[in-house]
Amino acid sequence: MYIKLDPQSDFPIYSQLIHQLMEGILKGELKEGDMLPSVRSLAADLGINMHTVNKSYHELEKRGIIQIIPKSGAIVRLQHANTGSEHYERLVREMKPVLLEAMTLGMGKAEINGLVELLINEYKGE
Amino acid sequence: MYIKLDPQSDFPIYSQLIHQLMEGILKGELKEGDMLPSVRSLAADLGINMHTVNKSYHELEKRGIIQIIPKSGAIVRLQHANTGSEHYERLVREMKPVLLEAMTLGMGKAEINGLVELLINEYKGE
Repeated sequence: MYIKLDPQSDFPIYSQLIHQLMEGILKGELKEGDMLPSVRSLAADLGINMHTVNKSYHELEKRGIIQIIPKSGAIVRLQHANTGSEHYERLVREMKPVLLEAMTLGMGKAEINGLVELLINEYKGE
Repeated sequence: MYIKLDPQSDFPIYSQLIHQLMEGILKGELKEGDMLPSVRSLAADLGINMHTVNKSYHELEKRGIIQIIPKSGAIVRLQHANTGSEHYERLVREMKPVLLEAMTLGMGKAEINGLVELLINEYKGE
């Protein structure tokens, strides 16, 4: 898959890498059980620090998206964010401040739902 | 309004302060035109660094929620996140990665909409 990092983005490089790997999974370019590139080779390909790639991989593992197997590599291993699960609760924590800000800035329920729908469809390629 | 900071939270103190001030506005405890406490007095009340309060205030100003008037203070001045506005675009940027993660973790459109609805109602006290 093709990864493009933007040094001008609001998001730090490690977050951009996380987002792009998640997009790769959603698009089916990376599938359950697939091996990710080694930290060393991905860092070299992207011209970024190995620590940055390492940070992204560990964050993806914490988020239930990949599994890091010591001395072997990282593979895609998706956990479902079932209601009440650790991953679900983290999503709730992450979503709250964005919704809070939207509401503070005067967006109503219908407007927010519309935006969420739009973004979901974008990712689903609809 | 009552502000409670949690040193154990995933969110840094300045973010927690931002969230609580936004909640205060949503609950009507802080209204358009209200003066916020001075940086010095809020920092003293909360037992945190003045730089932290200052960072929160500047972030809230950037987000179109308050206005900082030099040598006078910070007042609530809400800008509406109209479609296409700078504030709307920032919300889109913030919402995308959360939705991306939810979808990667197998949540479908209905599940995500349900969660968003739930959280909105929570803030609206419904």
